[in-house]
Formats: sequence, C-alpha cells, structure tokens
Amino acid sequence: MVDISALIDHTLLKPTASYDDFKILCEQAVEHFFCSVCVPPYIVGSCKNALKDTKVNVCTVIGFPLGYNSCIGKITEAKQAIKSGADEIDAVINISALKSKDFKYVDKEISLLRKTTVNKTLKIIIETAYLNKEEKHRIADIILKNKVDFLKTSTGFTPTGAMIEDIRFFKNILKNDVKIKASGGISTYKQAKDLINAGASRLGTSKSLQIIS
Amino acid sequence: MVDISALIDHTLLKPTASYDDFKILCEQAVEHFFCSVCVPPYIVGSCKNALKDTKVNVCTVIGFPLGYNSCIGKITEAKQAIKSGADEIDAVINISALKSKDFKYVDKEISLLRKTTVNKTLKIIIETAYLNKEEKHRIADIILKNKVDFLKTSTGFTPTGAMIEDIRFFKNILKNDVKIKASGGISTYKQAKDLINAGASRLGTSKSLQIIS
Repeated sequence: MVDISALIDHTLLKPTASYDDFKILCEQAVEHFFCSVCVPPYIVGSCKNALKDTKVNVCTVIGFPLGYNSCIGKITEAKQAIKSGADEIDAVINISALKSKDFKYVDKEISLLRKTTVNKTLKIIIETAYLNKEEKHRIADIILKNKVDFLKTSTGFTPTGAMIEDIRFFKNILKNDVKIKASGGISTYKQAKDLINAGASRLGTSKSLQIIS
Repeated sequence: MVDISALIDHTLLKPTASYDDFKILCEQAVEHFFCSVCVPPYIVGSCKNALKDTKVNVCTVIGFPLGYNSCIGKITEAKQAIKSGADEIDAVINISALKSKDFKYVDKEISLLRKTTVNKTLKIIIETAYLNKEEKHRIADIILKNKVDFLKTSTGFTPTGAMIEDIRFFKNILKNDVKIKASGGISTYKQAKDLINAGASRLGTSKSLQIIS
C-alpha cells in the first residue's frame, strides 16, 4: 500500500482563512506526516516558524489563481516567499499569454521562475480546465525544457480539477523527467489512489484528513 | 440623465482572455467614452499603448482576487503597473488578516499602497461577500484614515457582488471623503442606475456594452 500521507500537500488557500486556521493546518501536517502545507504567500513565515524542527515543508502559491500578474510581480513574490522560508513554490502560468500563442512569453517567465527557485521545488500550475490539447502539448514541452520539478494540474478555483486522463496524458510526455502534482477536487482515498496509479507523485488537497481516514 | 459611460471601468479579468480580446476592449472603451479599461497587470503596457492620445485610463488589479499575497509582492506589482502606465490601481485587502482581527496589518498594507500610488487613483477592494458588519465598519475606518480614493466592493469572483444596501452603508460612513466603486455582477442599466443613486461614483463591469445599450 502506498503511504499517501507522504505525498500530500495539505492545502489551505481560502481567502477567508484565519491565523488560527493556518496554525491548525500546520499541527495536522505534523501529526499526519504530510509532505507540506500549501499556504498563501503572506503567511509563509508564520507557518515556517510553526513547523521548525519538523520534516514538513512549506509550500506557497505565486500568481495565484489567475496567473496574469506581471512577470516581475511573480518573481518578487517567489523571492520573498523563499526569504520567508518557503521550500516549494507553486506558480501559475500566464494562461492568457498561452491562449494568445505567445509561447515565448510563457517560456521566458517559467525560465525566470526556475532561476529564482534554484535548490527549491518548483511546481508549475497549468490549469488544465482551460487548456485544449494543443495548449497542453505546448506547455508540457516548455515545462520539460525548463527542468521544472513538477507540472501541477489545477488551482482548485475552476469547475474541474485533477482528471485521470490528464495525468496519463502528461505522464506519457514527461516520463520521469518532470513529476506530476494532481490537484483540484481530490476528496476521496479512491480518487487519490487512482491519480497516483495514473502517474501523479504528489497530491494537492484540502480534504487530506478525509482522504487518509 | 446621468452619463453612465463616463463612470464605467470597462473590465476584462478572465484568465483566458487573449491579446486580441484586450485590443477589442480598448477600442470599445474609446468608442463609448468609458472612464477606463480594467485589465490584468501583465497587459497594462500594451493597453496604455493602445490608448495613447485618448482620455481612457488604464486600471489594473493588485493582489487579485484573493488578497493574500505578501505585502512586498503587492507593492512591487503596483509599482511595476504604474511604471507600465497604469493610472488607476485596484488592490484587494488581505481578507485573511482582517478575519484574524489583525487590523494593524491591514492598515499598514493599505498605507504602503497609498504611498506607492501618490498622484494615481487608488481603489481598495474589500470583497463585501466575505465580510460581516463589524468587519465592514473596521475596513471603512481604515480606508478613510488612509485617504484612499475609492472603496471598491467586489472582485467579481465571489457568488455575490455589488449590493445596494452595501453602497448605502458605506456612503453613510465615507460621506464624500472616499468615493465608492460598485463592482461584481452589474449587468443591466437599471442596476447601474440604482447603484449610482445609492452613492456609487464608479462602476466596474464586463457587461458595459449591454448596460449602455
């Protein structure tokens, strides 16, 4: 049996979450041996502090969830997050630029994010719900080229999230060169197991306790 | 009859909008004498260029739509937007900090945003859908204190947007010291007129053409 806990980014990205909610999130992550807590940029320092002397990573989100920030805005946010103690950076691509077929822009931005996150884990969120097949191919190629650590499927803020067929599709392209983080709407153990069997190496979910129980 | 066009921020904030969509948005704004186009940070420069020699402002959004970016992330994004030609900055408050009753944090961030946007129009988005009455009072006081130009009700990414009763509530506190931008779900002429009659001085909408027709 796979130890699913160790693959989970225990996630709280609701805009209304309070300081207490993040404190509880960190305690749960320690108790259940989750891989990381995935939290908003501004709370990274507090969470890092709450998790000192534990093996739980702090993960945060950049350009989240719409992806159309300025490039310098994303880079600054990533740098600041790392300075505050982030171990993992989940950054949303510029979907608008991808839709406009400005692959050069998308590539440049991811390349800068990679340079900014050396020695940290970089996950690039592509928001599958919005992409057609050609766009999925293009972005997978750009992610491969830039030696990103993970392709992450979704923000969780769109109607559909992690789909088995997407995981299979990307696994087939990325092989073992780039790992896959499935995210968005994962709420049962069966769903989690199916996504892992399809090729996901990490799961992003706010329903972690429900999944492992 | 009020000239509603001149009060409208013609808005396109969908993450999937293409370069062509933004070009059309700018053309529509010029044709119909809208106050501004409200667009993502990364496209501000292109829109400013498309609108040169016109009276249409470029407005962009900061910390959008969840508000929980790091403070330095928001400030950098605002500075970059102004450098690229933004005339108006619509920034989301840190809702999470407000919910945690960390009024000092919320105040400090807004104060820094005000310092960053001297001579520009600063609108602070409070996301009414998430706030209770006490929180609405607190944030209105902070906005008044920091001499922000506009309180803006909503991002448009929550189930409810601009409500007449909210406009009346804030007008009663802010008087003529801080103006009000009603936004979120505005789609008819009657709705627009009612919001203006209740005290709104500006309307944010992606349904501008439908409203003025």
